[in-house]
Amino acid sequence: MSSLPTHSRQVLLASRPDGAPTPENFRFHDAPLAPLADGQVLLATQYLSLDPYMRGRMSSAASYAAPVEVGGLMVGGTVSRVLATRDSAFAEGDLVLGYTGWQSHAVAEGKGLSKLPAHIPQPSYALGVLGMPGFTAYRGLTWIGEPKPGETVVVSAATGAVGAVVGQIAKILGCRVVGIAGGARKCAYAVETLGFDACVDHRDADLRERLQQACPDGIDVYFENVGGAVFDAVLPLLNKFARVPLCGLVAQYNARALPDGPDRFSVLPRALLTKSIRMQGFIIFDSYAEHYAGFLDTMSAWLAEGRIKVLEDVVSGLDNAPAAFIGMLEGRNFGKLVVRVGA
Amino acid sequence: MSSLPTHSRQVLLASRPDGAPTPENFRFHDAPLAPLADGQVLLATQYLSLDPYMRGRMSSAASYAAPVEVGGLMVGGTVSRVLATRDSAFAEGDLVLGYTGWQSHAVAEGKGLSKLPAHIPQPSYALGVLGMPGFTAYRGLTWIGEPKPGETVVVSAATGAVGAVVGQIAKILGCRVVGIAGGARKCAYAVETLGFDACVDHRDADLRERLQQACPDGIDVYFENVGGAVFDAVLPLLNKFARVPLCGLVAQYNARALPDGPDRFSVLPRALLTKSIRMQGFIIFDSYAEHYAGFLDTMSAWLAEGRIKVLEDVVSGLDNAPAAFIGMLEGRNFGKLVVRVGA
Repeated sequence: MSSLPTHSRQVLLASRPDGAPTPENFRFHDAPLAPLADGQVLLATQYLSLDPYMRGRMSSAASYAAPVEVGGLMVGGTVSRVLATRDSAFAEGDLVLGYTGWQSHAVAEGKGLSKLPAHIPQPSYALGVLGMPGFTAYRGLTWIGEPKPGETVVVSAATGAVGAVVGQIAKILGCRVVGIAGGARKCAYAVETLGFDACVDHRDADLRERLQQACPDGIDVYFENVGGAVFDAVLPLLNKFARVPLCGLVAQYNARALPDGPDRFSVLPRALLTKSIRMQGFIIFDSYAEHYAGFLDTMSAWLAEGRIKVLEDVVSGLDNAPAAFIGMLEGRNFGKLVVRVGA
Repeated sequence: MSSLPTHSRQVLLASRPDGAPTPENFRFHDAPLAPLADGQVLLATQYLSLDPYMRGRMSSAASYAAPVEVGGLMVGGTVSRVLATRDSAFAEGDLVLGYTGWQSHAVAEGKGLSKLPAHIPQPSYALGVLGMPGFTAYRGLTWIGEPKPGETVVVSAATGAVGAVVGQIAKILGCRVVGIAGGARKCAYAVETLGFDACVDHRDADLRERLQQACPDGIDVYFENVGGAVFDAVLPLLNKFARVPLCGLVAQYNARALPDGPDRFSVLPRALLTKSIRMQGFIIFDSYAEHYAGFLDTMSAWLAEGRIKVLEDVVSGLDNAPAAFIGMLEGRNFGKLVVRVGA
């Protein structure tokens, strides 16, 4: 066995962002790796997942999970190779899914890791279409969205890690699918490669009119990833009995303060009331125990049959993670964003 | 048979309100009654129901039902006595539930009427606890609220036609129940007579603190009848996985324009997301075919057992309907508001 690493290169939270994160909010650090105790494994990170929810962890505001402490390791899902093990469930060389954060290596408890699904087409898919984002898309759409054949499903961030899967599943389920994405390239991809019926550009000044044209029968399911002006355009088009799975609000994550008035707080409850709309937030971590295995079977089959296409935006090197993350919050990624960390 | 009436005294919509309705928005009119055609019955209104949703019908804005035309008859649920009939399903003297509006008499199609439930304690209950408001309370709470024993249920307009039933059902289901009502008299009634665990006065400047004290374990189900400042106080107290049946927004119905900023539109989606909350509007008219019969059985039994108490605010005479309705929108009624129209 080659000599084992003694340190892990880490990305720490240097300071909390005020609005959009900047490179100065991150700090690199080499941390010594402790010797393995019983039940632990030594891991070399292969892929790090970058996801919008991490913006919430950088703030101190209450959210659905505790914030990262200033000076603490940035959290995140990872695919890693086992370099050494004191847990008999794993062997040297195994690829495992974990939550070891923005770092090159880690000493982790074996019981918090899982081997990658058998026959996975690419290891990084465990962080995307077969992992948290894909599961989020599947569960939010089918459980809360409850789309029926012939209904119109609209999804924002339509070429993102979650949105691209939402739209493709909705097509499999027989729906009319309209994406909302940023820029002509993403919109063309949604229609030509992912098979959406239409995709409108949220940067277009005519967003409302274009969305209305793309949804002549209104909107029955809106899978919400972004909030902000996109939701303003969607709301008037929602049909009676529409369902709104609320997965993310990335357009709002960097907001420093509320916009100027008038105060439109009451507009949303009124719309929900007059149109009998159901809107429901959900956190995918609550669904793993009961529903992940079934998802994995279904999605693996769809992938094998070529019914779900995957687009990854792979950035090389942990040093580039902060810039890639900052860009993702501005919509500059194209597909599921992952960082290739190890060899 | 005594001589039959030739005219119906009616309350028409004279003009659309700008903000709170005024007496000038209503107009009285004597309309001739047409001779009965086959399948029709001649009715004398006994009780007219006054409900907050009628405010929406007075406006031209899109809502879940078509507005009343200016010059048209004000709509509403009624209990009436059959004076003459050309529908063999009804006999002279029958008491029937209909939707014949703010008037003393009506010629109606028999197929739009139903005989009052057998053994109904009071005919007016068909407009309240055993009718639309009671069914609204039952269906919204059990179907959308899904309260579990030990959970905290908060209901606004707590002594109103819907709220009083919501809270009493939640007590039957084993929940901690906290009402929100306007004034000390209503709050005392909610606790002492209806059996709520606590009730806070929404006119109190310390509403938020008092509600928090009354809900030491947060809020699991909030049955929304009012909106506005009351919902602002409730929102921070909602627990993870809370459910919000959205039944009415009476505090907003008279609003002329949105309040001044900042624009808090994004506050609600963010709360729904971070706490995995489900908020759902519903219109009870969509539930009758499938669920009304079961409700009627259950509620009739609870009434017979004394487990549900009923408070009615009975106003005498159709001429007093406009003032009573205007007062209800300001919270001046105490219990389910009905107008005693006929002898």
